[in-house]
Amino acid sequence: MAYRKFDSEVAVRPDDIDMNNHVHTSRYLDYVLYARFDQMNRCYGMSMEKFTENGWGWFVKSCQIEFKRQLLMGEMVVVRTWLDSFEGSDALVRFQILRKTTMKIAAEGSIVNTMISTASGRAIPIPASVIAQYTQFREQESP
Amino acid sequence: MAYRKFDSEVAVRPDDIDMNNHVHTSRYLDYVLYARFDQMNRCYGMSMEKFTENGWGWFVKSCQIEFKRQLLMGEMVVVRTWLDSFEGSDALVRFQILRKTTMKIAAEGSIVNTMISTASGRAIPIPASVIAQYTQFREQESP
Amino acid sequence: MAYRKFDSEVAVRPDDIDMNNHVHTSRYLDYVLYARFDQMNRCYGMSMEKFTENGWGWFVKSCQIEFKRQLLMGEMVVVRTWLDSFEGSDALVRFQILRKTTMKIAAEGSIVNTMISTASGRAIPIPASVIAQYTQFREQESP
Amino acid sequence: MAYRKFDSEVAVRPDDIDMNNHVHTSRYLDYVLYARFDQMNRCYGMSMEKFTENGWGWFVKSCQIEFKRQLLMGEMVVVRTWLDSFEGSDALVRFQILRKTTMKIAAEGSIVNTMISTASGRAIPIPASVIAQYTQFREQESP
Repeated sequence: MAYRKFDSEVAVRPDDIDMNNHVHTSRYLDYVLYARFDQMNRCYGMSMEKFTENGWGWFVKSCQIEFKRQLLMGEMVVVRTWLDSFEGSDALVRFQILRKTTMKIAAEGSIVNTMISTASGRAIPIPASVIAQYTQFREQESP
Repeated sequence: MAYRKFDSEVAVRPDDIDMNNHVHTSRYLDYVLYARFDQMNRCYGMSMEKFTENGWGWFVKSCQIEFKRQLLMGEMVVVRTWLDSFEGSDALVRFQILRKTTMKIAAEGSIVNTMISTASGRAIPIPASVIAQYTQFREQESP
Repeated sequence: MAYRKFDSEVAVRPDDIDMNNHVHTSRYLDYVLYARFDQMNRCYGMSMEKFTENGWGWFVKSCQIEFKRQLLMGEMVVVRTWLDSFEGSDALVRFQILRKTTMKIAAEGSIVNTMISTASGRAIPIPASVIAQYTQFREQESP
Repeated sequence: MAYRKFDSEVAVRPDDIDMNNHVHTSRYLDYVLYARFDQMNRCYGMSMEKFTENGWGWFVKSCQIEFKRQLLMGEMVVVRTWLDSFEGSDALVRFQILRKTTMKIAAEGSIVNTMISTASGRAIPIPASVIAQYTQFREQESP
C-alpha cells in the first residue's frame, strides 16, 4: 500500500533562470511548494482555507533535494508529489521534478511538513480527521 | 489598424506572494516578461533562438505599471500583450494583467524593448525583416 | 525646498541574475522596495510597525523605471530615494539606482504609494501627522 | 583539523517574505548561495572568474536544510559556511543561518557542489591546485 502520486505542471518563467542559463537551484523547491499547494484542494479535497479555519498551519521542517538534470527556459515541468508517512506532527512528502517532453527526472527529494497551531505557533499532532482524509488516497502500489 | 492581442496564462505560485498576502509588486512585471517570452514563438513565430542566431537581443529600456487589483494565491492570471509601435531600435509593447475568473484588470502598463547587437551590446535599428514578421499581425481594430 | 535624499545599499545575490548574466529587470524594483522599507525606520523614524498599529498601510499604485546600465553579480548597489510630493492619498517617491563603484546611474524612476486603511482596504487621505513627520526632512535644495 | 568557518551578512528584503509573514522557505537556500559566492573571492581568494577562466564550474548536486526558526522582515541574517570534505568531483559544504541579533540558528544544512568542465558539462575531479588553495584554511578545530 502506498499513497497515490499526483502531478502539477509548471511553466519555467524568465525570472527562474540564472547566470548558468537554467532554472536556479532554489526555484526547484518553489516548484514543489507550488505543486503541494495546487494539489491540496484539487487532488486531496483539503484546501489551505480549511486548514486555516481550523487554526492549523503547515510549516516546512526540512527538505532535501538531489539535482539530476537542468531545466531550461521554455520548458514545461511536471512536479509529482506523494505522501510517504505520518509521524506525530510530521508528514513526509516525496517528490520528483520531471521534464515534460521526456518525463526524465530533473530532481527528486523529500520535504517534512510539520503541523502547527496557528494560535500558538507550536507543533501539534496531526489530527485523526486529517490523516483519515489522506488515507482515502492509499492504494495498492503498482508492481 | 492595430496589432493583434495575445494572451498567456500564469498560475500564481507561493513564492510570488508577499507579506500583504497577495502577489508581490515586482512579480506583475515577471508575469509580463513570461508572457512576452511565451508569445514570441507560440504567437509571433519568432523564437528567442532565432533572434540569438542573428546576433540580436531585446533589452527592457523602460516600463510603467498601474496596479488596480490584488492577485491572490490560487488565482490563474491572464497576461494580454500587444505591440503598439516601432521607432528606431525601440518596440513599444502594451499589456493588461487580468484575473481569469472575472477578466477584470489587475494591472496595466507598457514596456519599451530595445533591440541590441549581442556582439557590441549597443542598440541597433530593428531590422525590416523583424518588423515585416510582426506586421502580419496588424488587423482592423475592433470597434 | 526639496525632501532629503537617503541611500540604502544592496548586495546583488545570485538569485537576482538572469539569463543575460545581469540583474533581472524586476529585481531593480525589489531593490527600491527594500530601500524604502530600510529608510522608513532608519531615516524617517517611522517604522512599518507604527503604520500598522494605526491601521494604515502603503500600497504601490504605480511605478515607472528607465533602465540605463546593467548591474552585475558581485556588485554593491546604492538605492537613493526621496519624497517628491503628496496629494490626497498618494505619495510620489523618486529613486535612482547607482553602481557603487562608479556612482553612475543604472536605473531611475518613480513610485506612487497610496495610503490605505488596513480595515477597509480602501485609500484614505494621508494623515497630517504623517506629512508633518516627513516635512522635517525638507531642506534647501542643493544648487 | 577542520576548515575555517566564514560569515556573510544578508539583509532580508520585502520580496523574500511570504504569506506567513516570514522569509520564504526557498530563500534560505538563496542566502546560502549568496554567502558561498561572497566568500569565494573575499575569504578563499578564488573568485568565480578564476574558475571560469580555467573552464571549471561548480554545480549544486544536492542540498538538505533543517528549518529551526523564522526570519522576519527587517532582520539581518548571518550565513556561516565551511568546507567539510572533498571526494572526487564533490565538495561537501556545511552551513548555518543565524539571526544576527541573537546569533541563534534559524536553519542549518549542507550542500554538495560538483566540479564540472564548462566545455563538456560533465563532472571532473577537483584539481589538486584547487584543493591546495582550500587546504590553507584548515586549522585546529576549537574544542
